[in-house]
Amino acid sequence: MKALLVDSSSGKPVMKIGAAHKPEPGEKELLVKIMATALNRADLLQKAGKYDPPNGVTPILGLEMAGVVEKTGPGVTLYREGDKVFGLLSGGGYAEHCTIHEDLAMPVPEAFSFEEAAAIPEVYLTAYQAIIWLAELKEKESILIHAGASGVGTAAIQLAKNLRHARVITTTGSDEKCTLTASLGADLCMNYKEEDYAVSLEETFGKNSVDVILDFVGSPYWEKNLNVMAMDGRLIYLSMLGGSTVENMSLVPILRKRLTIKGSTLRNRSDRYKIDLTSIFWKHTYPLFASGALKPVIDSVFNWEQCEEAHQKMEENLNAGKIILNGM
Amino acid sequence: MKALLVDSSSGKPVMKIGAAHKPEPGEKELLVKIMATALNRADLLQKAGKYDPPNGVTPILGLEMAGVVEKTGPGVTLYREGDKVFGLLSGGGYAEHCTIHEDLAMPVPEAFSFEEAAAIPEVYLTAYQAIIWLAELKEKESILIHAGASGVGTAAIQLAKNLRHARVITTTGSDEKCTLTASLGADLCMNYKEEDYAVSLEETFGKNSVDVILDFVGSPYWEKNLNVMAMDGRLIYLSMLGGSTVENMSLVPILRKRLTIKGSTLRNRSDRYKIDLTSIFWKHTYPLFASGALKPVIDSVFNWEQCEEAHQKMEENLNAGKIILNGM
Repeated sequence: MKALLVDSSSGKPVMKIGAAHKPEPGEKELLVKIMATALNRADLLQKAGKYDPPNGVTPILGLEMAGVVEKTGPGVTLYREGDKVFGLLSGGGYAEHCTIHEDLAMPVPEAFSFEEAAAIPEVYLTAYQAIIWLAELKEKESILIHAGASGVGTAAIQLAKNLRHARVITTTGSDEKCTLTASLGADLCMNYKEEDYAVSLEETFGKNSVDVILDFVGSPYWEKNLNVMAMDGRLIYLSMLGGSTVENMSLVPILRKRLTIKGSTLRNRSDRYKIDLTSIFWKHTYPLFASGALKPVIDSVFNWEQCEEAHQKMEENLNAGKIILNGM
Repeated sequence: MKALLVDSSSGKPVMKIGAAHKPEPGEKELLVKIMATALNRADLLQKAGKYDPPNGVTPILGLEMAGVVEKTGPGVTLYREGDKVFGLLSGGGYAEHCTIHEDLAMPVPEAFSFEEAAAIPEVYLTAYQAIIWLAELKEKESILIHAGASGVGTAAIQLAKNLRHARVITTTGSDEKCTLTASLGADLCMNYKEEDYAVSLEETFGKNSVDVILDFVGSPYWEKNLNVMAMDGRLIYLSMLGGSTVENMSLVPILRKRLTIKGSTLRNRSDRYKIDLTSIFWKHTYPLFASGALKPVIDSVFNWEQCEEAHQKMEENLNAGKIILNGM
């Protein structure tokens, strides 16, 4: 089969379509003809050699896909050839075919394109895991979502609003992105390039007002995050794109406000964990996707031959929502 | 009634017996003639003016007691006059009498002296909350307990061993204290003044081997704690006696090892929380106290007239286990 492979022959790694081994579906696995996949920041890291795939996982990039079941492995009971499915992958989405455990696959909802379905798994499952499982966001609590216009950010806004009727506060890097997060239901949207989010937040909602924070930024926000959190607040790190070293950090608020700080990634979780997460997620969100209350935010769709352009767009933080590849 | 009061007239605050208002039992409250109380580090902080009691709480020190029910308030159904009870207080243990909600009181087990019973509430409830509720220690996991010979430390060793059959690792500040923690069941005891606990721990049990850490020390141990923790490890802060500012702290392990860091104190929790904690704690531990498997470690017993000496001992870290006051 064809797949997008990392070509480092020129010194700078670039994605090029080449030949790869077509996988065979194992026990309870589906072989899927991929119709669309979506970009994740981990793809850029892996391409740059900074994020090795877990042991036993294909080196082909791509953490999610939507497509059509081409063949079922032994013991498959949930899907048949021709079914439209989508789901999370440990890798291998940038290709014509992949295999996926049937319990990790979800049926593509009617009226959803493959591009829309491919935009769901990573960001919604990551946001669901962070908000519902790790932070245990409660009804009407207050959540601060950094990088609110990112894929996970947009999914998090929708989930916090729809599942918990939370007060949602976002930071983004441009006024256009602020407008996007507001349109998704955020109650307060701040452009971090133009205002100090901690100050604006405190002016609007008072001191110590945030119950949950989703952070992708890391050390630059450590102190402010701890300061704006309420008693029993939960701070969830999903990445630390802005740095990970804090100088002169005070641990006092952790104790004084009984804070919880958690780091998490989805990719290195066990299959069992991902299956449980997928299953509970889909049960709680399927009706909301079907009704249109949850709707993946798609920034742009590229033919997979233009993968480099797509990567460039993400690298430069120019996307609001997911970047999709199709045409494989 | 008489009570130990903070006398700051000489400039240096000292404890002196004086007259205080005898409390009246309210709805569902017991009036208790206190027979013994126990010291907590919070007492020293409050005496020094560094830890104000929560709103509405008596300024009299003392966070736990054992005694005899002298009178029951309206609606009390669980106890009668003459019953021996013990339990957690928000304050007021350094006195002849106190009131306590009947749901916060526990019956003194047969064969337990008042001194032994008074040694239980703060340290066992704190350790139980930290290990079982916050860290969710699982069967046979590995737990590192700093200040292993402290009151909470000794309770934590016993609870981790008896309730979860955990591998218990302790740090203490003297060889005698190491011997004590070993006698309570610790599998590895390290004198932090003579060895680097992270090095010794790694030599004995390998890298990234600790699932749960109970820390009272704070910033001096931040980096080592994060380094020795296993995937999905949980670090619980109960105090930060060694400092709370970390220079050049790396947040990387939080994300890479999916760590959870929580701060907690017991005193500022709601009554509802304390009642739930007491009730579940006693259900799970009563048989173990009755059988002798759990046994409070008492360092020394002072007549309450010698309270200053008792405080001095704790101030100098000379105690291993609880310091008790009686004779009120």
